[in-house]
Parts: sequence; C-alpha cells; structure tokens
Amino acid sequence: MAHGRGKRLSRWGWEVIVQHEPKPGVLARRDAIIAGLRRLLPEDNVIGDALRLKPYETDGLSAYRQIPLAVALPETTEQVAAVMAYCHREGVRVVPRGAGTSLSGGALPLEDAVVLGLMKMSRILEIDYADRLAVVQAGVTNIGITNAVSANEFFYAPDPSSQLACMIGGNVMMNSGGAHCLRYGVTANNLLGLKLVTVEGEILEIGGAYCDAAGYDWLGLITGSEGQLAIVTEVTVRILRSPEGQRAMLAAFDSIPVAGACVDAIISSGIIPVALEFMDKPCIHACEDFAHAGYPLDAEAMLIIEVEGSVVEQDDLLSRIREICAQFNPISMKVSQSAEESLAIWKGRKGAFGAVGRISPDYLCMDGTIPTSRLPEVLGRITEMSHECGLGVANVFHAGDGNLHPLIMFDANDPESFRKAEKFGGDILKLCVDVGGCLTGEHGVGVEKRDLMTYQFNPIELNQQRRVKSAFDPQWLLNPSKVFPLEDTTPPAMAAE
Amino acid sequence: MAHGRGKRLSRWGWEVIVQHEPKPGVLARRDAIIAGLRRLLPEDNVIGDALRLKPYETDGLSAYRQIPLAVALPETTEQVAAVMAYCHREGVRVVPRGAGTSLSGGALPLEDAVVLGLMKMSRILEIDYADRLAVVQAGVTNIGITNAVSANEFFYAPDPSSQLACMIGGNVMMNSGGAHCLRYGVTANNLLGLKLVTVEGEILEIGGAYCDAAGYDWLGLITGSEGQLAIVTEVTVRILRSPEGQRAMLAAFDSIPVAGACVDAIISSGIIPVALEFMDKPCIHACEDFAHAGYPLDAEAMLIIEVEGSVVEQDDLLSRIREICAQFNPISMKVSQSAEESLAIWKGRKGAFGAVGRISPDYLCMDGTIPTSRLPEVLGRITEMSHECGLGVANVFHAGDGNLHPLIMFDANDPESFRKAEKFGGDILKLCVDVGGCLTGEHGVGVEKRDLMTYQFNPIELNQQRRVKSAFDPQWLLNPSKVFPLEDTTPPAMAAE
Repeated sequence: MAHGRGKRLSRWGWEVIVQHEPKPGVLARRDAIIAGLRRLLPEDNVIGDALRLKPYETDGLSAYRQIPLAVALPETTEQVAAVMAYCHREGVRVVPRGAGTSLSGGALPLEDAVVLGLMKMSRILEIDYADRLAVVQAGVTNIGITNAVSANEFFYAPDPSSQLACMIGGNVMMNSGGAHCLRYGVTANNLLGLKLVTVEGEILEIGGAYCDAAGYDWLGLITGSEGQLAIVTEVTVRILRSPEGQRAMLAAFDSIPVAGACVDAIISSGIIPVALEFMDKPCIHACEDFAHAGYPLDAEAMLIIEVEGSVVEQDDLLSRIREICAQFNPISMKVSQSAEESLAIWKGRKGAFGAVGRISPDYLCMDGTIPTSRLPEVLGRITEMSHECGLGVANVFHAGDGNLHPLIMFDANDPESFRKAEKFGGDILKLCVDVGGCLTGEHGVGVEKRDLMTYQFNPIELNQQRRVKSAFDPQWLLNPSKVFPLEDTTPPAMAAE
Repeated sequence: MAHGRGKRLSRWGWEVIVQHEPKPGVLARRDAIIAGLRRLLPEDNVIGDALRLKPYETDGLSAYRQIPLAVALPETTEQVAAVMAYCHREGVRVVPRGAGTSLSGGALPLEDAVVLGLMKMSRILEIDYADRLAVVQAGVTNIGITNAVSANEFFYAPDPSSQLACMIGGNVMMNSGGAHCLRYGVTANNLLGLKLVTVEGEILEIGGAYCDAAGYDWLGLITGSEGQLAIVTEVTVRILRSPEGQRAMLAAFDSIPVAGACVDAIISSGIIPVALEFMDKPCIHACEDFAHAGYPLDAEAMLIIEVEGSVVEQDDLLSRIREICAQFNPISMKVSQSAEESLAIWKGRKGAFGAVGRISPDYLCMDGTIPTSRLPEVLGRITEMSHECGLGVANVFHAGDGNLHPLIMFDANDPESFRKAEKFGGDILKLCVDVGGCLTGEHGVGVEKRDLMTYQFNPIELNQQRRVKSAFDPQWLLNPSKVFPLEDTTPPAMAAE
C-alpha cells in the first residue's frame, strides 16, 4: 500500500512524520467547515483562529506538534452527536480530546481534523451511594469524581499521576491505571456504563448500574480504544467506600535484582497491597532532593508498599510484608506511623516525573508491562542498555503489576541524542514483548508506539483489529494515524464474502 | 427482512422455533462433509451416526433439542484450525461446545452445523507460580485448574456451580461467574490471554502473562461472545494464592425486603465478603431437606456470608458484618467455628438447584442482574408475579453483586404451564432491565433470551453489535441463531461507505 505521508515538525524543529496526507479538499473547505460547526454550537465553542488553536497543538507527549483544522467544544451529548453527524456527512476527520495529558500522542491533532474537546462537559450528573456509582460527563477530571464523593467517605479508585488534570473520558479511552490499580484494577475494572456517540452521530448507551452485559462486551472493547471507535460523552463509574485508613512502608535494597525478587515474593505470597512502587537510585535521589521524604540515598532500589483497611488489618498486613522483605537483606525498612508520614513517602513518588525533569529537562517516559517474575532480568538489561547508548535512565514504576516506566534522559538540543533516546525506548518496549509482556501499561499506543505494533502482533492479528475499527468507523474518520502503523491504516475490505 | 424459520421439537414434544432454515445444499452434502472432516482428524474424532450424535443434541438448558449435522472433536489448535478452514471453505456453520453445561442454549446444535467439541483438548500446558498463571487447553474443566495447583496452595477463582463439569473454554465464551466472584470477579477478571482460531482457520494469540494489551481489548470482547466471534483453544488464567482460611456465617430474617436491605448495608459499608448468597424460604426448605445444613426453617430469607484471610482478618470482618446484620433484627445468626461447619453451610447452597429439582422436577432457572439497591423492590415484585401467574418460585442467588437466579417451578406435562413459566421468566428479566439492570448475569443470552435483546438494546445498538460480529465472521457461520433475535441475524452491509 503506497501512502502519502505528511511531514511535520517536532517541538525541537526536526522533521518527523506523524500523519497521513490531508484528505483531498478538506483544507480548502476549512472556512466552510468552521461555519458549519458554528451553526451547531454556541459561538464561543468553535475555535478557528490560529492564536486560540495553539494550546491544542500537542498533548502530554509534547515531542510532536500540529495545529488542527479547528476545535469544537460541545457541552452536551446532543451537541457531540450534531458535530459528529456533520463531520461524517462532510467526510472530515475528528480527533477527540480530554485534558490532553496523553503521554503517547493519542490526542495529537491532525492538520485536516476537527479536535472535538470534551473539557466543557464537566458536570457530575448523578451520585448514587446505595449502588455505589457516579454518572459524570466525560470532561470531569479524575480527581473531580473523588472530590464529589469524599465527604461521604467514598472514592474513585484509579489514580493516574495526572489525576488533577486528566479527564474521565480520556481515562476510558486509554484505560488509565495508577499506583493504586494493583489492588483496585485499572479504569476498565471500575467502569459500569458509557454513553457514546458513533461516528455517524448516533447516541448509544452501554452498561449501567449492574455488573454484566448481554451481547458482546462493548464496555471492554471501547475502553482503551484510544478514541478510534466512538466518542464517550458520559461515564458511569463504580465508587468505593473509603478504607478506614492506609499506611505506607519503605524497604531499601543494595541491588536492583534483589528488590525485584522481593516484589515477586510479596506478590506470590498472595498479599495484594494497595500499591507497590519501585524506584531506582537515580530516581530516589531526584525525588529526595525535591520532596525531602527521607528516602535512603545509599540504596540502589527502594520499594514503597502501601496497605489499607482497619488498623488491625493494616498491622497484620504490614507485619507480614516486613517479614517477607526481611528475607531479602534490606539495608533499611521504615513503616510509617501516621497518615502524615505516609503522605511524605508518597509526595516523593507522585512528584517523580517532575523531579527527574529537574535533573534532565528532556526525558522520554516509556510505558511497558512485563510478567513480574521477569523484573530482575529486565531491570538488569535496561541498565546495560543505558550504558551501551550512553543515555541515563531513571526507573520508577508500578512494580506490583509489572508496569515499567523507565525515564530516558536526553539532550533536546542534540537531534542525535533524541534519536538515540527514541531507539533506546523502542528497544525497551521490544524487550518487554520478548519476555512475554506488552508494549503498553497505561499510556496507550497513540503515535509513539504505533510502529511497534508489528513487533507485538502478526499481520493476521493486526488485520482483525483493523476490521473491528472498520465495524465502528468504516471511513476511518475517528482519530486515524494512531495505534496502527501509518502505512497500514486503509480501511480493510469488509463486505460479506 | 423475511426469514425462513426451522421448526424444531422441544424435549417435551412441543413445536418451538429455535434456528434458521438450513443453508441450501448443506444437508444434502452431509456425507461428503463428514468424509472431509475425517481427512482432518483421527477416525474416532468425527461423529456422524445418529446414536453417537444423540448426547450432543442439547445443553444445560435442555428445553430444546436438535441433532447436529456432525460432531468434530479436535485435539490440538492446529486440528481446530483445519476444521475451521474446511468449514469456511465449504460454507458450513459451526457450533462450538465445551461441556455443554450452558443454561441458555448457547451450545444448542443446529441441524446444518458441525458441533466443534473441545472436550478432547483437556491438557494443562504450563503452570507458572512466579507469574501466578496457568496455560490450559480449552477443554480443561474449571475445577481441573484448581486441582492442578492446589497442592501448591493456589486456586483459580471463578466457581460456577457446574465447576466439576464445565470447561474453561465455555467459561470464557459465557464469561462465567460463581459464588466467589463477588470478591474475585468473573471470568473476564481472571483471564490473561487466549489462543484463538478465526472462522477462516487462522490461529491468533491475544494477551499473555501481563496485565494490559496494546490495540483494542479483544480479550474483553471475545470473553462472553458466546462462540460467535472465534474458537478458543487455549486459555491463560490468573491463579491466586489460596487464602489462609475462610469462614461462613448465616443470618436469617423474617422478611425478604429486610434481608435485601441488609445485603445493601453490608456492600455499601465497603466490606466485600468473598461470597454473599441469598436464599428465600422455598429454597431454604428444599436445601435443608437435602443437605441438613442446619438452615433456619422459620426464616423468610437467609444470607450466607463468607469471608477469608488470616484468622485475624476473618475475626475482624465477621465481627463487623455481625454488627451490620444485627441492625436488621435477624431472627438468628450463626458464625461457623470451623472449616467443617462452613462446608456444611455451603453444601446446601451448592446443591440448591438439585434440591429444588426434588420438589419440582421441572423448573426454569432465570439469570438477570440488578443494582443491589433495588433488591428489596425486585424480590417483592417477583413474589407478586408468582402469585399472579400461579407458579411457584424459589430464589437463590449471588446477592452481593445483584445477580438473581429465580427458579420458576412448572409442570412439564402441561404445555400451558411451560408457556406461563416462559412468560414469567421473560417478565422477570424485563423487570431487571426496567430497574437499570441487565438480561444476563452469568448464563449468557444464547437461545433463551435472544428475543429479549430488543428490550435491552435499541436498533442502533443491536446493529453495531451485529457489525462487530461481521467484522470477525462475515458470513455468520459461527454459532448463528443465538444472541440476536432470529429475524435479525443477516450479516449487515459492511463495505466502506
């Protein structure tokens, strides 16, 4: 398949290829399309001028930038439906966007696409404590759900590091995780129902206040589909009763493989802490400088382990975990004695990406998943690869579920350094696949990893995924140029044979 | 759409309509098709004679019977692929089958279809305790997985009542649940990967020993797809460390709504027991006659509540649950003091369907899900409906997750009684949908509930599901006549617009 490819500029001014050629005629019709959108939405909710489009040119990956054709900001499901029906009729591509915190370029605009921003859909529609659920518009922030129910001692469990900003609609589309997902599962495990708008502008509802679905599991399919199958406008989530309390402990080790083995021992003992986080030496130092959490600076690796429940349960679990850690010759262990001490421990971890940013302004945050039993081996190999390519790496990640986040440090003033970093990142993800793991943990495929999809999947598998895409979006109007390798994004033939 | 409909006999000799007209020419080619299959499989693994086909004519629903065209019993994924490629080439429909314990007619044969039985694929392929997973062929029984790992103190969590017989491939296809799914989730929550054979006979692998997937969530989509999208040949499941121990308690109440309110109070307190089962008076009596478990015969409703963990955790949880139950004026509470007492409590519950069978040889076991807050109201309405139609009903179900299993008692010698029972069952499921619930909990849609799909879904929603079906199976060869209303199972047009 021969495809034209648009050439775009990265944030650093290098030429990179991030999207298809624009659809014929769409750029020329730009004014008419904007006028068409203005007939559907309040005046202020359609953005067409360059200055106001600028904030939408990138997302959390930020390595790539592209000004979109226009931005539409609907406030209701019906307005989303009207925009989708219009774009479908006009053959215009659409890129849905929540808060734009995607770390894989999932919300990167296309030159010929309307960005459909959900940030004005920020209303909490219903809270039902008896059925432990909340119904919210897609533009409500992740933390906004917890804030709305915390006075009644409930919370929403998945907690991505970007939870202050990221929106639940985006969480659904990327199947976001977070530190506490070890116990509570990722977004998919905390979702009850969705209101969707199809590419044709039809409104659908799936799932609801119960725990099964007749027919196929759309809820699972849509969750993590990176904005390629439908637009999410309302989300019904499970809210959980807040635990009576929680407490964290630190365990520090003088060897990365030994710390990895300790993670494996905790998990295979059958204890599932609410969080089990791993930091290596570069990360410990960066975070300690930043948060003064009392992290052990002589350690090669450190675990943050949090348990929750009644005081009796906390004590019981912490003493069992201490016992396991003690078998791995820790250089120190510290069990927090109060909520304040726990918060201090977490402050360092939650600020880890920012802290690494202080020692290296430019870094790539990778995201892959491996079987926990392979942790020691994979961490050892990443250290070797770091020496081989001469780029520093800091490891901080959700160890309990094998979700790695190596932060590769490079120099953005040096294109060669960026290319090396990209290659290093790709090699890490291939290593994840090689040991039986996966290209993504919680950041999605987006633009960043689309070319690696052929490393994880064979052509038959990829083609079947493309057929599913076409079953929802026959013309591939919804967030194309993402997830699948660029040369492989023609709608497959779908007619009954 | 005008469709021919085949008329078939129920087990009781009445005419009922359960499948399409046979595909033109297929019945006439029966001998050639059997000969073709015999070239692909060992001689004994293709069944064509009437006597040996007889055991395959029905499944656990057993109200409907149909002798299939032939039965193929492959032993390897490659043999499954060969059979599928052959049937695809010949345009022959295929009905996959595990142990045939489906309660919704999901494995009911079609006159013109080859039944693809997975029961000879019963090998455990790999057990990996470090990564807490097992890889097994699709024909391994549910209990077989736990049996294979129990010596090492691990177990596989979902536990359908049929777990001694039902096979993991069938569990995947129906997304089976069980009493302990309140804590551990259903099949979908305990699945890591699948090996699949497509309708064209291609072999695919999805997921694996890690907890996320790049691209779309096929694992979710395939799970619960009732054999309509692909054939599952190998399954990678999560195995869990066995808890240190577990203990059950009984709480009996003199009112169904009060017992329902108590369930709601336990769940909304944030305590998630491993199981929370509900039995009403008819069921308590039937089970006590059968199991002599010491159930309270004067109660209108009874809860079985099980917790697990260390002895400290068990004590802590049971005392908190007792406290909550005490607020609802129970007529009795009994906390088991030993594993033996717990087993006795469970013996009655696990034998409930059989026990009801002793008081009414013929019953329909319904399966719907509702928000737990609606339990008191729905149970009250079911009692009223029972009086209105003059048929007895016994309620025994997974109350914690709102999964109802009313057992409707009728007289199979009286066609009018069966029709009333079918209508009563349908009305219960509609009631589930009306209160914000769902047509199924864990038994699937199959033949039994396909006509009710239009009650749960609007035409746009159903059509989108049919498009997903077509994306996997353009000719609708795989287990057609199930899930969707019969008149609605023509492949939709799928060409790019």
